[in-house]
Amino acid sequence: MRDDSKKIPVAVKRRLPRYLRALGDLKKKGVEKISSGSLSDYLGYTASQIRQDLNHFGGFGQQGYGYNVEALCKEIEAILGLDRTHSIIIVGVGHLGQAMANYVEGYEKSYELVGLFDIKPALIGTEVGGIKIRSGDELEGFLKENSVDIAALCVNVESAQTVADKLAEGGVKGILNFAVTDLDLPEGVKVENVHISEFLEILTFDISDR
Amino acid sequence: MRDDSKKIPVAVKRRLPRYLRALGDLKKKGVEKISSGSLSDYLGYTASQIRQDLNHFGGFGQQGYGYNVEALCKEIEAILGLDRTHSIIIVGVGHLGQAMANYVEGYEKSYELVGLFDIKPALIGTEVGGIKIRSGDELEGFLKENSVDIAALCVNVESAQTVADKLAEGGVKGILNFAVTDLDLPEGVKVENVHISEFLEILTFDISDR
Repeated sequence: MRDDSKKIPVAVKRRLPRYLRALGDLKKKGVEKISSGSLSDYLGYTASQIRQDLNHFGGFGQQGYGYNVEALCKEIEAILGLDRTHSIIIVGVGHLGQAMANYVEGYEKSYELVGLFDIKPALIGTEVGGIKIRSGDELEGFLKENSVDIAALCVNVESAQTVADKLAEGGVKGILNFAVTDLDLPEGVKVENVHISEFLEILTFDISDR
Repeated sequence: MRDDSKKIPVAVKRRLPRYLRALGDLKKKGVEKISSGSLSDYLGYTASQIRQDLNHFGGFGQQGYGYNVEALCKEIEAILGLDRTHSIIIVGVGHLGQAMANYVEGYEKSYELVGLFDIKPALIGTEVGGIKIRSGDELEGFLKENSVDIAALCVNVESAQTVADKLAEGGVKGILNFAVTDLDLPEGVKVENVHISEFLEILTFDISDR
């Protein structure tokens, strides 16, 4: 338990995956230490913002030395919770759900895919990534018997709230919501929305002559 | 051409798709006018923020009347550029690319899917949504002969920059980038990143005990 890291501002939190990715790239290239200035060139954030951001979790940098890439990587992984394994299920195994399964498999240890659910008879019983797709009817029972940390919600807008209610009821801690609708959930359940069509609309704004 | 709408702040711009979605829902329910207060209950933004946001594009509200749902909907569609048709291609027609094709088809008029590209021999020549998948080798030639507004980049991280260079060279105005990497592009080309694994990591942060 680190009480201090609870105070990480939302904007900083949202930059953490990008820091981790940059540091991972540097590690692959054999870089052992890096100054905030070089990290700034790499990431496009200002050196001063980087120092401020990283000060939120331990202030790893040493004056005149810079950041130890490996140590900072591990620290950010730990802050994000990626140093532990989280159980994950995918509800809705259409194209998006299957893409999601691929993302999950890309992690070495952070996530364990424990269940797949769909309502399409043609899909039920088939396998994705070695996991059998179960009927949506089994979801509630599955959640009673298994502890699930995260659910990727890849169902249509019409079913999203009903499924989300079952997920919350079943003790799921966080929902990655791909359905373009705002879920109404108990306070303890975290939601991260990935509304792909909204990104497309924002891009359309950016390219449109007005 | 509306010079004033160019000044819409980034934060407001990013909220526009959500406004549009809420107004679309209200329209479907037969609601003709709505106050900023009711819109606030609906969206979770404060009434004062809503009034400020909507003032950026014409100030549709009338004191004591509220907003005309239909008119505001049309106005936001026009600002986002959704009242015109944008040509779109998808590069990489794996699960994500096919999911993307479904999103595009969900719009009545805003987007026209004009091309699909992949490098997998098994996919080339097959059809998705009535469009034949072409070989990635044909991309440059296709862009010379066709005007493409938007490309959804659904390839792997390793190929993303190379493909993005071709897209920029070929006159594509905007890239919806699903590859978890930062693209380096000429200034005129807009990019909207949809880094799904980063949303998963942020959710993991939110559910993790520290």
